[in-house]
Amino acid sequence: VGEDLFVGIDLGGTTTTVGLVSPLGEVLGCQSFATRVERGHTAIICEMAERARVLWQEHGLLSDQIGGVGVGSPGPLDPMTGVIITTPNLKWKNVPLLDLLTQQLGKPVLVDNDAVAATFGEWWMGAGRPYRDVVGLTLGTGVGGGIVLDGKIHHGFQGIGGHIGHMVIQAKGRRCSCGNQGCLEAYASASAIAKRAQEILAEETGSLLHSIDGPLTSKQIFQAANQRDHLACQVFDETAYYLAVGINNVLNILNPELVVIMGAVANAGDVLMVPLQKHLSGMAFSNVCKKTQVLFGSLGEMAGVIGAAGLALHHRRLDRF
Amino acid sequence: VGEDLFVGIDLGGTTTTVGLVSPLGEVLGCQSFATRVERGHTAIICEMAERARVLWQEHGLLSDQIGGVGVGSPGPLDPMTGVIITTPNLKWKNVPLLDLLTQQLGKPVLVDNDAVAATFGEWWMGAGRPYRDVVGLTLGTGVGGGIVLDGKIHHGFQGIGGHIGHMVIQAKGRRCSCGNQGCLEAYASASAIAKRAQEILAEETGSLLHSIDGPLTSKQIFQAANQRDHLACQVFDETAYYLAVGINNVLNILNPELVVIMGAVANAGDVLMVPLQKHLSGMAFSNVCKKTQVLFGSLGEMAGVIGAAGLALHHRRLDRF
Repeated sequence: VGEDLFVGIDLGGTTTTVGLVSPLGEVLGCQSFATRVERGHTAIICEMAERARVLWQEHGLLSDQIGGVGVGSPGPLDPMTGVIITTPNLKWKNVPLLDLLTQQLGKPVLVDNDAVAATFGEWWMGAGRPYRDVVGLTLGTGVGGGIVLDGKIHHGFQGIGGHIGHMVIQAKGRRCSCGNQGCLEAYASASAIAKRAQEILAEETGSLLHSIDGPLTSKQIFQAANQRDHLACQVFDETAYYLAVGINNVLNILNPELVVIMGAVANAGDVLMVPLQKHLSGMAFSNVCKKTQVLFGSLGEMAGVIGAAGLALHHRRLDRF
Repeated sequence: VGEDLFVGIDLGGTTTTVGLVSPLGEVLGCQSFATRVERGHTAIICEMAERARVLWQEHGLLSDQIGGVGVGSPGPLDPMTGVIITTPNLKWKNVPLLDLLTQQLGKPVLVDNDAVAATFGEWWMGAGRPYRDVVGLTLGTGVGGGIVLDGKIHHGFQGIGGHIGHMVIQAKGRRCSCGNQGCLEAYASASAIAKRAQEILAEETGSLLHSIDGPLTSKQIFQAANQRDHLACQVFDETAYYLAVGINNVLNILNPELVVIMGAVANAGDVLMVPLQKHLSGMAFSNVCKKTQVLFGSLGEMAGVIGAAGLALHHRRLDRF
């Protein structure tokens, strides 16, 4: 016997991961599957439920030993009702994910934004453990955000706060996937990095990147930057500048103890962090805010699964299911 | 007998106002004086104390009947210790305002940012009364900000959150008084409005503003816009656009119930509000956030005094003095 276990699900446009997580944040097992958006939401939610059941049965557990299920999903969504309002990545509109998954599993389910889940994961069990106030940024296909204040998620009035990726840092700037212009996402996401490199590549010569066939990925640019390729370094320096503008805004508005950077772009390591710290230290007020740490997450790709399970665990401890 | 009264002080670079405020938020009396920054902080703090004493004596009150004193001051400052870290407006550096005023008055003193005090005033007794989460913006010489979440001020880790005016909305944009570039303050303050009008004036002809001698004020531009002067209207439309970008960012990050606009520029009324609502409604996500109200404050110039007194009152009720 002992304390219940929790299921954490990281629902993504490409891959979905289902994990079995202990109350201490250990991942006891996990399964990933291709989301295959074209199937529609019913089939995807059925597979999420089926994978969760298989996972706990494989560990010799009964449904009764599962304390709850947390899902991190692309948004915007309503974390009170667990309805996905709209999400370009999944092509869902007004899908009652919480209700549908509850029906499938017969367990209490909590749904929150994927970046919120990852931020909560880092706060609970990762780089954010020593801190009370943590703001998280996931730099992937898009830029997601999560806000943990005093150990609680800040959702705002309608539950749609935390969309730091759609903070405009360049009015009338680059077009963003959301339809607006100049969002942080259009400057600091993996897609923005690849797009920007492609632009500069057309104008410049003598870069390692010229030898790559087909569309560039942010990973290739990161690898070239690691080999000190000037063009790749320029792209990362620019990206770091815009990311610093966004983080400086977060410091000025929320003054958190920690800003944690997650997602694929975080794998760039020093290629991103060194220019980021340089640009940040040159911005006004960041001097005053100099005690705020800016760190990469330590849970890697599992932040979302751990965080989603952690959200379910905290929700149950507070008797909110 | 009855409940104690509170002193609210709005400390400004030009004028300082001291008010006697009831627990219901009524201003029972107030005095304003020219701050005269050149005197240095000791003389100014002495005059604040003296005016407060005169005020409560005029109302036949003993020191014992004063529950506490709240001060809204330009910042950045540390609301925990009441030390003004640095403020260009007052030319103060590391001034222990809370300690010095406590010594003078022998009463518990609370110090917070001026825009935080005004926001709290509007939340407590003004336009924000029906709301739980309120973000306030004061558009004056600079742009100040205040964040009330769940009825509590969000100060952040080091107490310097809420500086929404120094959120960068135009990376590498207009130079701001803080040394950084592209802050909201450089686009939506009274000074920015006057400066922008002066710039356009040099290029265009046929505006009412051409007939004004000397440097323009935002009030003159507002009056001209009210007379449908095309140049003045253009300046307000531009200002409203940048303000909408800033407010949209606040909606995306914090998703408050209300954004309340205060300060001298708020007097512009529809000349500002109509284009502001137009620009906001065109921005992505504000659709999702459409339930958030954007309103002018209702307490006018007294928001700071009422809010500072209200902060002291709430502080005492929570036994935090």
